Amino acid sequence: MIEYITAGESHGKGMIVIIKGIPSNLIIDENFINSELSRRQKGYGRGARMKIETDKVEILSGVWKGKTTGSPITIVIWNKDYENWKDKAPTPILEPRPGHADLIGGYKFNHLDDLRKVLERSSARETAARVAGGSLVKLLLKEFGIEIFSHVVNWGGIEIDTSHLPLEEIKNLAFQSEIQSACDKTTEERVKKLIDEAKQNGDTVGGIIEVIVNNVPPFLGSYQTYQEKLDAKIAEAVLSIQAVKGIEFGLGFKYAYTSGKKAHDEIFYDGKYYRKTNNAGGIEGGMSNGSPIVFRAVMKPIPTLMSPLSTVNISSKEKVEAIKERSDVTAVGACGVVIENSIAFVIANALISRYGGDDLNLIKENFNNDKSLKYFR
Amino acid sequence: MIEYITAGESHGKGMIVIIKGIPSNLIIDENFINSELSRRQKGYGRGARMKIETDKVEILSGVWKGKTTGSPITIVIWNKDYENWKDKAPTPILEPRPGHADLIGGYKFNHLDDLRKVLERSSARETAARVAGGSLVKLLLKEFGIEIFSHVVNWGGIEIDTSHLPLEEIKNLAFQSEIQSACDKTTEERVKKLIDEAKQNGDTVGGIIEVIVNNVPPFLGSYQTYQEKLDAKIAEAVLSIQAVKGIEFGLGFKYAYTSGKKAHDEIFYDGKYYRKTNNAGGIEGGMSNGSPIVFRAVMKPIPTLMSPLSTVNISSKEKVEAIKERSDVTAVGACGVVIENSIAFVIANALISRYGGDDLNLIKENFNNDKSLKYFR
Amino acid sequence: MIEYITAGESHGKGMIVIIKGIPSNLIIDENFINSELSRRQKGYGRGARMKIETDKVEILSGVWKGKTTGSPITIVIWNKDYENWKDKAPTPILEPRPGHADLIGGYKFNHLDDLRKVLERSSARETAARVAGGSLVKLLLKEFGIEIFSHVVNWGGIEIDTSHLPLEEIKNLAFQSEIQSACDKTTEERVKKLIDEAKQNGDTVGGIIEVIVNNVPPFLGSYQTYQEKLDAKIAEAVLSIQAVKGIEFGLGFKYAYTSGKKAHDEIFYDGKYYRKTNNAGGIEGGMSNGSPIVFRAVMKPIPTLMSPLSTVNISSKEKVEAIKERSDVTAVGACGVVIENSIAFVIANALISRYGGDDLNLIKENFNNDKSLKYFR
Amino acid sequence: MIEYITAGESHGKGMIVIIKGIPSNLIIDENFINSELSRRQKGYGRGARMKIETDKVEILSGVWKGKTTGSPITIVIWNKDYENWKDKAPTPILEPRPGHADLIGGYKFNHLDDLRKVLERSSARETAARVAGGSLVKLLLKEFGIEIFSHVVNWGGIEIDTSHLPLEEIKNLAFQSEIQSACDKTTEERVKKLIDEAKQNGDTVGGIIEVIVNNVPPFLGSYQTYQEKLDAKIAEAVLSIQAVKGIEFGLGFKYAYTSGKKAHDEIFYDGKYYRKTNNAGGIEGGMSNGSPIVFRAVMKPIPTLMSPLSTVNISSKEKVEAIKERSDVTAVGACGVVIENSIAFVIANALISRYGGDDLNLIKENFNNDKSLKYFR
Repeated sequence: MIEYITAGESHGKGMIVIIKGIPSNLIIDENFINSELSRRQKGYGRGARMKIETDKVEILSGVWKGKTTGSPITIVIWNKDYENWKDKAPTPILEPRPGHADLIGGYKFNHLDDLRKVLERSSARETAARVAGGSLVKLLLKEFGIEIFSHVVNWGGIEIDTSHLPLEEIKNLAFQSEIQSACDKTTEERVKKLIDEAKQNGDTVGGIIEVIVNNVPPFLGSYQTYQEKLDAKIAEAVLSIQAVKGIEFGLGFKYAYTSGKKAHDEIFYDGKYYRKTNNAGGIEGGMSNGSPIVFRAVMKPIPTLMSPLSTVNISSKEKVEAIKERSDVTAVGACGVVIENSIAFVIANALISRYGGDDLNLIKENFNNDKSLKYFR
Repeated sequence: MIEYITAGESHGKGMIVIIKGIPSNLIIDENFINSELSRRQKGYGRGARMKIETDKVEILSGVWKGKTTGSPITIVIWNKDYENWKDKAPTPILEPRPGHADLIGGYKFNHLDDLRKVLERSSARETAARVAGGSLVKLLLKEFGIEIFSHVVNWGGIEIDTSHLPLEEIKNLAFQSEIQSACDKTTEERVKKLIDEAKQNGDTVGGIIEVIVNNVPPFLGSYQTYQEKLDAKIAEAVLSIQAVKGIEFGLGFKYAYTSGKKAHDEIFYDGKYYRKTNNAGGIEGGMSNGSPIVFRAVMKPIPTLMSPLSTVNISSKEKVEAIKERSDVTAVGACGVVIENSIAFVIANALISRYGGDDLNLIKENFNNDKSLKYFR
Repeated sequence: MIEYITAGESHGKGMIVIIKGIPSNLIIDENFINSELSRRQKGYGRGARMKIETDKVEILSGVWKGKTTGSPITIVIWNKDYENWKDKAPTPILEPRPGHADLIGGYKFNHLDDLRKVLERSSARETAARVAGGSLVKLLLKEFGIEIFSHVVNWGGIEIDTSHLPLEEIKNLAFQSEIQSACDKTTEERVKKLIDEAKQNGDTVGGIIEVIVNNVPPFLGSYQTYQEKLDAKIAEAVLSIQAVKGIEFGLGFKYAYTSGKKAHDEIFYDGKYYRKTNNAGGIEGGMSNGSPIVFRAVMKPIPTLMSPLSTVNISSKEKVEAIKERSDVTAVGACGVVIENSIAFVIANALISRYGGDDLNLIKENFNNDKSLKYFR
Repeated sequence: MIEYITAGESHGKGMIVIIKGIPSNLIIDENFINSELSRRQKGYGRGARMKIETDKVEILSGVWKGKTTGSPITIVIWNKDYENWKDKAPTPILEPRPGHADLIGGYKFNHLDDLRKVLERSSARETAARVAGGSLVKLLLKEFGIEIFSHVVNWGGIEIDTSHLPLEEIKNLAFQSEIQSACDKTTEERVKKLIDEAKQNGDTVGGIIEVIVNNVPPFLGSYQTYQEKLDAKIAEAVLSIQAVKGIEFGLGFKYAYTSGKKAHDEIFYDGKYYRKTNNAGGIEGGMSNGSPIVFRAVMKPIPTLMSPLSTVNISSKEKVEAIKERSDVTAVGACGVVIENSIAFVIANALISRYGGDDLNLIKENFNNDKSLKYFR
């Protein structure tokens, strides 16, 4: 099983991830990992820090002459800021930000002398480590033709309809777009204006991301136990990401408005099984069904505001303004990148549980020999 | 840690659950467990089977003179149907139902001679075992004043607005309602009519459930690692339930339409910390924040239709109608009961990880001695 | 992954096990499971209870027309004793037996009113459930030619030397022997006499069991992380068995007396790799190396004595005799059966992690296609 | 729950460990960690490398102003050797060493072009990362008065009897001894001579280590399920260490020679429960019983020999000598240090599962409030 753990603080020495269980003999393209990190940093509305730090990985273990050895892989993204920052002896933080871990984290772990000990770890900077690890898993999935991408379908209330576009085009458009959306220039300008206005107001903007796992084989996940449902595992991975507050697969909440006759994807066969619709978002009975996996996730507006919210000083108990930290106005597109890379682990584990997980060549042979698969792709 | 596993087939001998890690000295009220099972079976639009079988538990282990011993608890719900059913030698099923595990499960586990082997386990009857186990955990939570309830806020597109009602009233209204909603009689009649019409059309109806964890203490879950986020764990539990296709916490997908200034719940203090709003749905930074946990989940319309969908015979590969099994027109209210009981495990584990988990008396002492808690409740 | 959990009390309704993750399409021979249970009950020196109860399994789920479905399998061994026993309203036990869980379990779980709540679960009767589950896994291993057996090599200090015998003969001799040892009649008589004398003295007898996993493929386990070492997993499984106090692989503690030059098994090749010795007990670097896995485990003498030890009444705190319960004089041979079946899970999981785990036919294909394997068997 | 993962290769950039779940507000004494690493490197008979590299940790995350924050802690031990080594372009290794992971690891992970990919990870250098992590956990245990130490009781067949010494003295003697044994100078000289002779012969020496967990509270572990047995967890941790081939608790294999009447530790009370003997090695029913936990582990002689064993070139399949790498003649004392630190995790997790695991201060309060504990210490 592939497992990973992240460590590191926002202004600490660096962000670290160890990934165990990656099969041997996978070619590691460090540029690809860095490009995913770069995608995580980009986007209209990102703050100053994103410009200061261009994240680059250093691989400390598990890769030999450009290939995985099957050993645990350690990746570090050194925080360039650290050397400057560490001597500044920042004053303690006692004003918890609403919408963050600050207040509860401070009381839970007894960090009442300085909430910075909470902030530093609960920060979304942690997701850099996930993207570093996840992008490596994306490389594994590519070997089986599986591709994960995302695009923003709602920016602060501005909906972007892509129902008329083929997946390939959505991917390409979003990839080139400054706002990670598959939309025309007019819409893009509207979104940018919304973000600009929020910035002027010291405000922030949330949105909705659609994520697609394309060319995914069937049989991933299982209905046998609640622990193996693929959608449950994806939901867990996605909701574990900072600021994500919801997920829906396929029709999602629209299922409430759709009757059974119209809701389900009828089954057809012409040498292979296929569907004409994908309301299920590619998952039936907790298993991938051969259609692309499609889900949407909502990101709340970032709660660190330049025009701060009301809060309470945890020492004096007086009403104060929450700390003001220069931050992003919005990071919805970046959140999509984090989601893509976080669910890569889920997909890969489901794959490995069917085909074994020691050596990439052996897994590929097992995959290619799977007769059941021939009925679907 | 509390862990559970369910077993059993829809028409097999019974549904079984083993729960390990329940603290010792918890008084077990078997009537309460049966009443939760009964709630799972009830509701307008349920099919014939729900009337035939009144689920009752038999506890096989882990309880001694009405109290838990700390040993694994086994609960069985015997299928009354089994004795009749087992000799009927039902004909093999070769027509997979769209929206179910049938097709993919059949090819994944090589059950192509009879998809019944898939149907029997992927059936939502499995959730009876979860409710049996979860209701036992609910008893544990009650000892700490924690209560979980649910109500349907959308029946097949008919929205039920409860924003004006206090939680206590929502609970009571929904509890008494035949449609598990906190609504007036007129709305109830509209919903019933919708369900009646669906029945006449051989159709089915989905909906949206709101779930509330009331009087929940803060500090459950953690921001420290993605594995400990409380919302992620809840999402995993909820999406693992048959037919659930989405979840959103607090404002949920509406966060996309709400700016940062309006989105977050400002912090106040008057002897204890409190909030005037609960947009976050009671979870910040992956931790309960002392406000009620509130989330919504969507259930798709049941895909077993009396007026069946088009599918393919997996042997002949010919186009056929999916199997027709007398089933429920809708089970959205029941789904709420399943969710309540499934997330009880998540809440209890988070509690135990802070206060220890051997003996109920010891846990209570630790809970009552927690000074941080005094600032919140 | 195959996982199992046992439940049940010694004098409760029955012993239960749920096993998840068993691949589909494995033929289940219930007679074999019952024969393993019978082996667990047999042996010279067993008490009265073993004669009363002939354990037989009832399978409640996961098997359809004699084959696994891939669904969780529930097995119950009903306690025949229960109906008589339950109305006897046994008096509370307040005299903890040294060597048992009684004292510590009573204080840990707050069962000071009646230690019976501890005894009932900590009893070695629990191992009946493990054998039931493990024997099912043995059936899975048989499909790959893997066989696990055991024999007693030391009975209360009487050593049985089998170094001159081939494995097949050891297996057969031990299988037929009343004392589960591959020895001659004279030695068997000596052992029986030892046991008889212990019985007369109200005493008990321990011993050492050797366990062999024969025809085991290489590549099980891994050196990559401490979590994957096969010997560590076996040791965990074996030490989790009641009364087992030690384990050693291959030369085991004799390695301390053997220099490096003589300790290791040199590698040879004649179309396949082979060894002339097996000091390593079949495991190098945490992996099976193609030689039989061989280890020994020590079982302490049963601490329930007819001539009881000194202890303390937990209520009065006075010095008393430990409770006297008619029990076995020895169960070393039975312990071997429990070990065999407990480690079956470990071996099977290691196998599945290389070859996948959905459908037995698919796993076999992957196994047979493994080119690396051809160099070893 | 405290969990850890190690990464890194013997001649790679460094050895890394991430530990999650360490409670907040534990004071971290980096000197102590380094001193444990130093203990791991010392000992009569260690090779050249141990002299080159003096391991020192760098903490990358999870510690703020000398205290833990509750966040994952990353520790790196940079390999000083790396810079020299990496450009040397070492020739591929094709001659697997008997007794190592080389042969099986090479075929399992398809590293047949260069077994170095196996050697580098399977090397015992990995244990440096475990010691770094474990010593941090030792600091946690110290807060509860729990102490873990070890001493060598058998060096290459030379037995060191310490049965007459109190634990405190064993600890002190072994700590000061060059051979980590609590013995007189004469015996020490005998051992050194044995090691010297082995060195001259290109041979290696194994031995037996006794490990003591002193002042350990009762109630750690549980009899309720096989997964919670403390001895099973310790055995797993110990057998996962390179070159360890066996473990025995208390009387261990001598239990076979001891009758029930003499084997068990009778229970006494004089205000607190106590024992006059500790044959059980401090564990009954899978739980610590308040006596010191005592077990022994055997380490095989290191299989890398200057006078190499016979093996097969995996490419040519010809008979060759195994690779000769300058290595230790013996490392039995160091193995004790690794064991101590590996089992620290097991003890700490058992503690946390009873008393909770967020903040050290809260855990201590819960610990001090435990009324059951008063009967034992």
